Amino acid sequence: MTANNGSDAPEYEPLAQSVRRLIDATIRTEAGAGTVAAAKTHIDCAVEQLSESLMPGSFGVRDPVDGQPVTSGNVMIGARNPVAPPPTIHRGAGGVVWTEITLGAAYEGPPGHVHGGVCALVLDHILGATAHEPGRPAYTGTLTLRYVRGTPLGLVRAEAWVDRVEGVKTFAKGQITDSQGITVTAEGVFITPRGDRH
Amino acid sequence: MTANNGSDAPEYEPLAQSVRRLIDATIRTEAGAGTVAAAKTHIDCAVEQLSESLMPGSFGVRDPVDGQPVTSGNVMIGARNPVAPPPTIHRGAGGVVWTEITLGAAYEGPPGHVHGGVCALVLDHILGATAHEPGRPAYTGTLTLRYVRGTPLGLVRAEAWVDRVEGVKTFAKGQITDSQGITVTAEGVFITPRGDRH
Repeated sequence: MTANNGSDAPEYEPLAQSVRRLIDATIRTEAGAGTVAAAKTHIDCAVEQLSESLMPGSFGVRDPVDGQPVTSGNVMIGARNPVAPPPTIHRGAGGVVWTEITLGAAYEGPPGHVHGGVCALVLDHILGATAHEPGRPAYTGTLTLRYVRGTPLGLVRAEAWVDRVEGVKTFAKGQITDSQGITVTAEGVFITPRGDRH
Repeated sequence: MTANNGSDAPEYEPLAQSVRRLIDATIRTEAGAGTVAAAKTHIDCAVEQLSESLMPGSFGVRDPVDGQPVTSGNVMIGARNPVAPPPTIHRGAGGVVWTEITLGAAYEGPPGHVHGGVCALVLDHILGATAHEPGRPAYTGTLTLRYVRGTPLGLVRAEAWVDRVEGVKTFAKGQITDSQGITVTAEGVFITPRGDRH
């Protein structure tokens, strides 16, 4: 994983950004059936156009011939994946990894709040990033989440740090905070395989 | 939470299904810049059309005037949320809750595998569902995930059951399996608030 969002193919990133706006509008529209049908026609046209040439599997397993990082399709940080927020991952002093992201309507669980599982997704990634080395990703062994209170939709900060390292295991801790303080804390063990795990 | 996917407004569900196909095509397309630009134009038109009337906040906090369930916008089970797979939640004998879902390219973490955080999202929801009562959702207190091996993209089964109940706390256990067996196990404590927590 690198500090950028994982895309070197300039046409795909604006496409994904448009689809992110579309996801939000799809959830929040109150337009009538006629307008919705017209919008659906546009979307189906776009799907047909983009499908004229599709890689056979997921993004990560394709043959990387064009310099796009393998993480471009990642659900959390992939610049090409419209599901990804995607956050910019910062690395601070003392091995701290942090990001600030706005989680909107697409990530809702309890009304007005981020789904607890999305908090888990964010924390899994941020805690895991403390153990990542370039070209040598770490895999989650265990992850424990403690939900202190609901996380309101909007701007959140996620951060993590290494508690200790034992052999191939990195023990990481982290948290999500909003303007009022901590909403979720996490502890995880991440494994850096000596070879290729898969 | 109900056993259906949370939508009674028939025009919005096919719209979300089209956007799900678009998300997959956006990640997997190998079309050239001209085709991508043409598709983006269609998408931006659809965004503009759907945005002619938008609810001001997220789906869950709006005034439900049209019979659509509050969960229609949910990131995991919302029929209107293109990020949601969305699974059909089954309830079996002995309080078992289970679902079978196909997790494709949009949910990728390690190449060819489901992101560990998406496994957490699925398990948070399925374990939580063991504690849900109609109109009285349970909130995640703690959740612990143990990753046995990578979860390949494709069809997975997630299931959960109640281990025990102590007052407002439901202790649930669960797992994700593929055709080869268990990939992730989970334990969680879910709180059913006596009043409205938010």
